[in-house]
Order: sequence, then structure tokens, then C-alpha cells
Amino acid sequence: MQIWSTLNNQQQQNLLSRPAMADNQKLSDIVSDIIEQVKYQGDEALLALTEKFDGAKLTSVKFDEVSLEEVSGLISAKVKKAIDQAYTNIKSFHQAQYPQDVKVETAPGVVCELKHAPLASVGLYIPGGTAPLPSTVLMLGATAQVAGCARKVLCTPPNKDGQIASEIRYAAKLCGIDEIYLVGGAQAIAALALGTDSIAKVDKIFGPGNSFVTEAKQQVSRIPAGPAIDMPAGPSEVLVIADKDANPVYVAADLLSQAEHGADSQAVLVSDSEALIEATKQQVSAQLATLSRKDIAQQAIQHSRYILTGNIEQAFEVSNSYGPEHLIVQIENARESLDKLTNAGSIFVGQWSPESAGDYASGTNHVLPTYGYARNYSSLGLADFMRRYTVQELSYLGLQNIGDAIMDLADAEGLDAHRQAVALRLQSDLCAENKGGNAS
Amino acid sequence: MQIWSTLNNQQQQNLLSRPAMADNQKLSDIVSDIIEQVKYQGDEALLALTEKFDGAKLTSVKFDEVSLEEVSGLISAKVKKAIDQAYTNIKSFHQAQYPQDVKVETAPGVVCELKHAPLASVGLYIPGGTAPLPSTVLMLGATAQVAGCARKVLCTPPNKDGQIASEIRYAAKLCGIDEIYLVGGAQAIAALALGTDSIAKVDKIFGPGNSFVTEAKQQVSRIPAGPAIDMPAGPSEVLVIADKDANPVYVAADLLSQAEHGADSQAVLVSDSEALIEATKQQVSAQLATLSRKDIAQQAIQHSRYILTGNIEQAFEVSNSYGPEHLIVQIENARESLDKLTNAGSIFVGQWSPESAGDYASGTNHVLPTYGYARNYSSLGLADFMRRYTVQELSYLGLQNIGDAIMDLADAEGLDAHRQAVALRLQSDLCAENKGGNAS
Repeated sequence: MQIWSTLNNQQQQNLLSRPAMADNQKLSDIVSDIIEQVKYQGDEALLALTEKFDGAKLTSVKFDEVSLEEVSGLISAKVKKAIDQAYTNIKSFHQAQYPQDVKVETAPGVVCELKHAPLASVGLYIPGGTAPLPSTVLMLGATAQVAGCARKVLCTPPNKDGQIASEIRYAAKLCGIDEIYLVGGAQAIAALALGTDSIAKVDKIFGPGNSFVTEAKQQVSRIPAGPAIDMPAGPSEVLVIADKDANPVYVAADLLSQAEHGADSQAVLVSDSEALIEATKQQVSAQLATLSRKDIAQQAIQHSRYILTGNIEQAFEVSNSYGPEHLIVQIENARESLDKLTNAGSIFVGQWSPESAGDYASGTNHVLPTYGYARNYSSLGLADFMRRYTVQELSYLGLQNIGDAIMDLADAEGLDAHRQAVALRLQSDLCAENKGGNAS
Repeated sequence: MQIWSTLNNQQQQNLLSRPAMADNQKLSDIVSDIIEQVKYQGDEALLALTEKFDGAKLTSVKFDEVSLEEVSGLISAKVKKAIDQAYTNIKSFHQAQYPQDVKVETAPGVVCELKHAPLASVGLYIPGGTAPLPSTVLMLGATAQVAGCARKVLCTPPNKDGQIASEIRYAAKLCGIDEIYLVGGAQAIAALALGTDSIAKVDKIFGPGNSFVTEAKQQVSRIPAGPAIDMPAGPSEVLVIADKDANPVYVAADLLSQAEHGADSQAVLVSDSEALIEATKQQVSAQLATLSRKDIAQQAIQHSRYILTGNIEQAFEVSNSYGPEHLIVQIENARESLDKLTNAGSIFVGQWSPESAGDYASGTNHVLPTYGYARNYSSLGLADFMRRYTVQELSYLGLQNIGDAIMDLADAEGLDAHRQAVALRLQSDLCAENKGGNAS
């Protein structure tokens, strides 16, 4: 346990620092080599790399999906119900985010509009590994569906038999994902970015992944005219603010939920109660022993941090300074603190709001800025699957109204043709019959 | 002139291709060296580099600004009025973009919210060079002001006497920019990203610049936990769709407005009328001769493209395929075509809407995705100066309602602690008195 007020500025900063993300030249070289292979050998490279990394010998990366009815027969009724409920809630929350177009007449005869359109094609990456992640399919897929993206492409690595989990297939089907490709890792990202004979390239790539996937996303996002990506990656993290009345059983469970994600997960408890901190530590030890992923959680817990503050306001300051991906507030009148908590990806209010609610089923998106990026990147939402563009229409009167301003600014910036484009129109008699026309 | 329908697919693609942005290792090395200098030598490096590149010997990079009254006395009444009008219109259009928070009860007792907050600190880069760019100060500064960003920092290179243009100072003052630093180039971007004794680092960096500035923005955006940047850069471009009734004088003026920006500017005319194309070409030659920047415009016009289509619908397809930064539609009933024009940064509707209106004074933002990025990046707007985050609050009842879904998904993904965080809460009697509590 660290007592916040006894630390100097530098020590406080160190306590809140994240593990360094080292510049790994070897990783970068491996990934750029994979991208080159996909660029020049296309599907052939995808099949070879899938055999090499996933042990699956495929003849095509395209996965031929069956009907929703057939896929739903492959999973248990319990899991189907869970996925259905999560899907409904995620859809409901993201539908409510649908943006309004804006139309303003900024000056008489000068109409400016902000319009929104779905991205035409999106690539959704779903990691493989020991457990399937249908929740991530829902977070990305349902949001893309609500946005109205015409092409939704899912890439995920197959197992040795060339199969993918039925839970992923069912979630994808619910979200209207019609293209599934059995390819993972950096090669999947390269295919989504550059296109191959089988996989047409996409406009934006979303989703979590291992260090090869995140490095590949970074690299392809720098290709001129290449795809956009969702956000920079970093290890997952939670900060819990708790007071003396918080339940240490719940606090410990929330810290461990984060810890079991990975050995590099960050779990931070900030409290103004030493008793709560001590009780939580004991609970963490007790609960840890029961977890199937206890080895991973144990490693993460070893570098967890317990910070004692002089009062709860100081705890808010610590949290704002850290800027956690997940922020859980288990204090009296938690909602009242929201205005003071300015820097987090997603905030969980009160004792009945565990992080796992947002990870799975409440409706909020679990793709969140981490590693301090909460301060300058947004939680994933509908806006990330759409683009904004503007429209303007001036009438002759409108151009008259702002013509002098345009011409004088063009003069100030030394751009003659900009001035001329206005001057020639206002001087002209060629279209006299149209001058009375409106902007509409 | 190229006749679209006579070209095969590959020829069509080539015709719409942008100039290659070469991977320039030398530029990259120079910029990373400058960033390192600023990282380790701070203000000392800034002063040395400003002397080297801008010829100004400063003792401090901080610019001590005087009052609005004093600054407005330094510019002509005409330019002041133009800046004032542009500022009013830009503010008005961006205020109308202010986002609504969202609050949804996705299931009984499960309340999810989407909230918006201004970025705490933004860095606005304004290039130097031969002419001052007060319009860019307004586009970035007024938007940051409307968003409510607490710190708005402007960096711009000084002239040899250590001064900056009064127009820039006046525009900055209007936008409430209180921090101005006399530093340009990659060193300014490095200072905004990393901080020095004089310049505290910012959360996001905006603004145009030369190849050093844009390379520096790319590099600092990859620093772990580093700043966000506005969007990828590319040469500016316009595509004009015009029919037989369009006025070639106006079309030519719009193409030249784009061409005078720089030798690498792209100007494309697409029309179903050969007569209009020929008349426009003549007008381009005639108007070109009168421009002060005719050498630059001439170079850009040399690689401009004139494309004849079989009908106007085909012209829409060409435009959608190109995805121009600026799209000007000078056809009969131009507004009716908007639904078919799905891919552009900003659309100018009808003959009285020249590009220069949007560049300066209509109210729309002139920072737009170019180089084909219109398909997957947004026109700069209020949203870029804000961040979105989510909040959720469950009542005990709410957790009961979605508890099974959470636990079953946690099981499916093999994450015990995620299940436990729910199970322990629902089993617990410790807080029985609170179980009836609401989410609010």
C-alpha cells in the first residue's frame, strides 16, 4: 500500500506509470515482412501463413457459413440466450447514438450542413487462442450493423481442423456479417488493408489482438490512402475508487476480473480507507486461489497498486491523473462524483456495476482507450463506424453577403484565384436570370 | 481530355490515381533527429532550431500577446471585418454540432450513458511561409473554443525579426488562444507532443504543414501514450462535376483556386459535355495568365484531368470512385444529386458555391480529408475536439436481469473472475439493505 500524500510528484507519477511499451524492432520487421508477403503473394501467402502459425491446411480462406437456424443449433440454449440478450442491449445503446445531421444558415443565403454516412466497408478482427470471444464480435459487429456499413468482414484464425467456434459464428450471423475469413495475425490485417483475390480491402480495421496484430494495424494505417484503424492498443486496466463502506468482496472480484485478462493487466485500487484496502487485499488472495486462470491473474496482481489517499476528493485526482480504461466507483452517492471524474474510458457507478457487466451485456462497448489514451481517444461507439462530411450551398445573395470577406481574406493570404472565383461570379452578367435564385 | 467509357478498368484507376507519396527515409531520419533534440534539450533545442531554420534569434519561444484592442489596431479595418465575419460563421456552424449526451435504460435497472467532454489541451499548428494563414487559425481555434478546450496552444514560426503576422495574432485572440509560441516545423510538433520547460505537452495536435511537419505529426502520434493527431495529410484537391449549362468561367476559376495552392494540387473536371470541357480549358488558360501565383498554378494544371463521361450519372460514379477532398457540383438541380454523391470531404452545391467560400467564410471547416481519405476519415468538426466516454449504473435488480447473460458469456470465454464478480454480488447478503436501490 502506498500513502499518496507522502509521495513527491515524481514518485506519484512513477506509481501511476504504465509498463513501458518497448519499441520492438524485431517484431516490427517480422510484421512488415508478413505484410510484404501478403502484398505480393496474396491468398497464397495467407494459406501458407495459416498453415505455419495455426497448423491448419486450408484450400481457401473463405468460410462458407450456413443459415442462422443451422448455426444456432450448434450452441447451447444457455449461451444462445446470453448472446441474444447482450446483442439486444448493445444494439439498443448504439442505436441511441445515431447522429443527427446538422443544417444551419450561417448568413442569409449561406446554408452549411454536416452529414453522416456509414463507412462502406469495415474489417473486424477477432483473436483466436484458447477461448472464443463472441462478446467482441457483438461489440464490433452490432455497432457496424447499426451504423449501416454495407460490407462487414470478419477475420479470425482457425483451429488445426480449420474450424472456428460456433459462438463466434452465431454472434457474427446475428450481426449480419456475411463475409468470414479463416485467417489471423498480421496476415489478416494485411489482407484487410491491401486486399487479395479472396478478400477485398476495407476502409477501416477494428479489433483487439496480440502484439503482431496491433503492430500490423499500426503499420497498415500508415500506408498512403490505406485503412483507418480504431485506436492505439495497450494492456487492459481498471482503477477502483472505494470508500470505507465499499464491499471488499466486490472490490477484489473487480480487480481480479481485470487481472485475469493478461499478465500485463493493470489493477489499481484507490481508497481513503486503510481498512478497506487491507480487507480487499485479503479477499484478492482468497478469491485468486479459486480461479482457473490464477497463474495469469497472479502475475497481474503482483504489480497491482493499492493507494491510500487522505480523502475521497484526492482519490478522484489520482484517477483523473491515471486516466483508466475502466473506472469503478464504489462509494456513497457514487453518481454525484461523476462531474469530477473527467478522464476514463468507461465509468461503472456503484456497487452493482461490475466491470464484467460492461464487458459483456449492459450495452456499452467494451472496446475502450487504455494506456492513458482515455484523455485523447474516445470509447468505441457508433461514430467510429461512420464518417462526417459537409455540404454547402450559397445563393447569389449568399455569395454577395460573404463575398467581401472571402475576397479580403484571399488577399490577406495572397491567393488570387480564390478571390477571382468570387469576383468573376459577382461581376458576371452571364447568368443574370439566376441571380435571384435561392440556396435551395 | 479522356473519354471515360473508352478506358478499361486499369486505365480508369490510373486516371484517378494520386501522385505517389514516396516513403522518404531521409526526411524521416531528419525529423526523428529533431524530435530527439527537443526531447533531450527542450527549449534550448527549440531556440537553436528556430535560429537555424527561421533565422530568428530569440531568447524565449513564448510570445507575449497584448490585448484584443491593441492587436485589432494592427490590422486594416477591411481584414478585421473579414476575419470577424468568418469567425462568426464558423462558430455558428460548429456550435450547431454540439453533441447530445445519450442515456438509455437497455434493460430494467441497467442505465447506459454516452457522455462528451472537451479535450483538455490542444495544439494548433499554423504554418509560416510567404503569406499568413489567419483562416486556418479560425478553423482550428474557433472550433476548439466552441468545444470548450481549456488549453489552446498555437505554434507558428516567426519571421527573421521574431515576429508573426498581425492577422494571425488577431484571429488567435478572437478564438481565445492564450498561449502562442514562436516555433515552427518538426520542432514545434515535438514540443507539443513531449513538452519542454516553456511549452506543456498537449493531448492532440491539429493543423497543416510542410512535409517535415506532417512527418513529425505521424511520428509523435506513434509514441506510446503520446498525442492524437487530426488526420493523415496529402496534397489538396478538387473535383468539379459540370454539365452543359455550367458556366466555364466559374468552373475554370474553381479549378485554378485549387491549382494555386501548390504544384502538387489535383484539379479534376468531370463532365458529360465536351463543349463545356473545351470552353473551360480555354478559360483556364486565360485566367491563369492573370494570377500572381501563376507558376505554381501552371504546374498543378499540367497534371489536371478533364474527363468526359457518357452521362451525368457516370460523372457521379467517377467522383465517388475518386473521393475528392472538395467536390463542386455545377449541374442543373445540383441538390438532387446529393444522395448519389457518397464520397467527398466537402460538397459545394450549385454555381454560387465556389470552393473559396468554404475555404474562408461560409462556416464549414476547411480542414478536410484528402488523398482518398474522404472514404474513411471525417471532415474536421467539433467532434474532433471532444472525447466520448461511457457510464453505466446497474441497480441490484439490473444486475439480476443481465447477470445470467454475463455469467454464461464469461463461462463461454473461460473468464472465471468475470463470472465471480457477478455471482458474489448476487449471492451476497452483506448489503441486503441496499438491494432495493435504483440505478439512479
